[in-house]
Amino acid sequence: MESKRHRLEPGEMAEGILAGDKVILSRAITMIESTRAEDRVSSQELLKILLPKTGNSIRLGITGVPGVGKSSFIESFGLYVTALGKKVAVLAVDPSSEKSKGSILGDKTRMDALSKINSAYIRPSATGSTLGGVTSTTRESILLCEAAGYDIIIIETVGVGQSEVAVRGMVDFFLLLMLAGAGDELQGIKKGIIEMADMIAITKADGDNVEAAKRAMTEYQSALHLFASDNGPWQTQVTTCSALDNNGIEEIWDSMNAFRTAMDKASKLSELRNQQNIGWLHEFISRSISQRFYNHTVVKSQLPELEGQILAGELPVMEAARKLLDSYEKK
Amino acid sequence: MESKRHRLEPGEMAEGILAGDKVILSRAITMIESTRAEDRVSSQELLKILLPKTGNSIRLGITGVPGVGKSSFIESFGLYVTALGKKVAVLAVDPSSEKSKGSILGDKTRMDALSKINSAYIRPSATGSTLGGVTSTTRESILLCEAAGYDIIIIETVGVGQSEVAVRGMVDFFLLLMLAGAGDELQGIKKGIIEMADMIAITKADGDNVEAAKRAMTEYQSALHLFASDNGPWQTQVTTCSALDNNGIEEIWDSMNAFRTAMDKASKLSELRNQQNIGWLHEFISRSISQRFYNHTVVKSQLPELEGQILAGELPVMEAARKLLDSYEKK
Repeated sequence: MESKRHRLEPGEMAEGILAGDKVILSRAITMIESTRAEDRVSSQELLKILLPKTGNSIRLGITGVPGVGKSSFIESFGLYVTALGKKVAVLAVDPSSEKSKGSILGDKTRMDALSKINSAYIRPSATGSTLGGVTSTTRESILLCEAAGYDIIIIETVGVGQSEVAVRGMVDFFLLLMLAGAGDELQGIKKGIIEMADMIAITKADGDNVEAAKRAMTEYQSALHLFASDNGPWQTQVTTCSALDNNGIEEIWDSMNAFRTAMDKASKLSELRNQQNIGWLHEFISRSISQRFYNHTVVKSQLPELEGQILAGELPVMEAARKLLDSYEKK
Repeated sequence: MESKRHRLEPGEMAEGILAGDKVILSRAITMIESTRAEDRVSSQELLKILLPKTGNSIRLGITGVPGVGKSSFIESFGLYVTALGKKVAVLAVDPSSEKSKGSILGDKTRMDALSKINSAYIRPSATGSTLGGVTSTTRESILLCEAAGYDIIIIETVGVGQSEVAVRGMVDFFLLLMLAGAGDELQGIKKGIIEMADMIAITKADGDNVEAAKRAMTEYQSALHLFASDNGPWQTQVTTCSALDNNGIEEIWDSMNAFRTAMDKASKLSELRNQQNIGWLHEFISRSISQRFYNHTVVKSQLPELEGQILAGELPVMEAARKLLDSYEKK
């Protein structure tokens, strides 16, 4: 690339990504997140070129409530696997950053050591996304990272809710991080979240907290017996870990590999990914029809005035919607 | 109603709702959540009839991480305001229930005392919803509850993430419940979530925990100074409360009323709601165009085979999407 500013053709972008160029990878992810019509077309071309080079990673979803130590864990884990010679990419799904972006401590200082490793790629949260906006292109970002040769793609998500359901639908292995000693660990935990997990790791198992972490581990192990699992060849594991002492990280990596072996042996991994592709299909369609609607000249010309009338309290929402939908149908 | 089973016309439903019939209200909410074409048409008729009777409530969003005591708080608060002669409706937005519905302790036993009060209406989580599915009709459920005469509509949401952003976009007053003594209160809290809050209440301020709760309150008050606020006539309040001791509930209710007075005086409440209606417009459009797509005969006939090919790993997702979109465009 002579210049980083000139617009790259999908073919050029693909070359750069396959060559492992992080700057081009970042530009491609930004393009994929864009809602502009020309970017949509280029994104689809790019994905079409790269599709044969995708699929060769472990897709790892990591979740947990704020304060559980996700960033510290990912940093320890990332440093461990890169030391083994693996390439790791971290994609953050951060739905709460809509208003003011990022956490109090700031995203820039997160995973400082990992971000300096050449074989690690960290993609900060997408900004300015609307509800559902981030995760709707995360699947495609995963594919780009795979084409760029990353062996482990980590999708980090915050909190316990919608984004977890979305992330579970696009990863192979779903790791739930939990804190010990909150007193009522089980009370607030949604059965659905636990059922989604392939592994539960009790974090901060260091210093005075080791015993509490072990107790929590036992509690979760018992609780898991409450649930009839249909996970097939894999039973949800529970462990403890400490990013501070670098404990338990190796065990989690070993479990992920055991999971992969078990799933492969039962031919379940490709089955899982094909099923996930159904979700991708519907997300893709939903995005496409929405973009066609909003990019249509009739809609573009009428929308501002109708929104103005709604803001002035002069027009009921459903009437405005009806007008736009009718105009669009007639187009 | 002679029979509860026969299909009600929108006009009949409206009558029942305006008369305060909870069974009919529940049926109407179920209808609004339905994606069937005939239900969509009836829902829009129903909303059109009821629209003039809406708007006369305080719309209250309540959020907090699992274990913070949302149900206990809502029960205490609900019992308090119903004792004042107010009618209260509780709508749960529970995005994590997709797989197995509800928490370990079970939703049925939640808010037991409140559910027995005649002037309280509790709508459990919508089931079988897809990503975004629950909140996409929550706005309309609020309107139905308003038409049914509820003075306070509580939208309960779980976790810290996408659903909060959605709920903030449809309520007047956003209450964030927080636990004291988690040690690193501020670390994990997203700035965006705090900025969305009109009030932060530290829960479980009882027994040995009173001092910790007060310390946490002070910490949050200091932290709020870090944020430049554009909340206009209202500054975010911080307080403590205990559902166990029934402490702090009255103060929270007083703050909500003070908020309402301040917002009304500055003509900000109707402005806020009109702005929120823009969000509703786009959700409504998104839902409508998606339903038109999936209800179209061409899509209905082609989708199963294309999904089958994706599941078999024989067809790339984007190619399947392209085929469906092309067929739909030609229709």
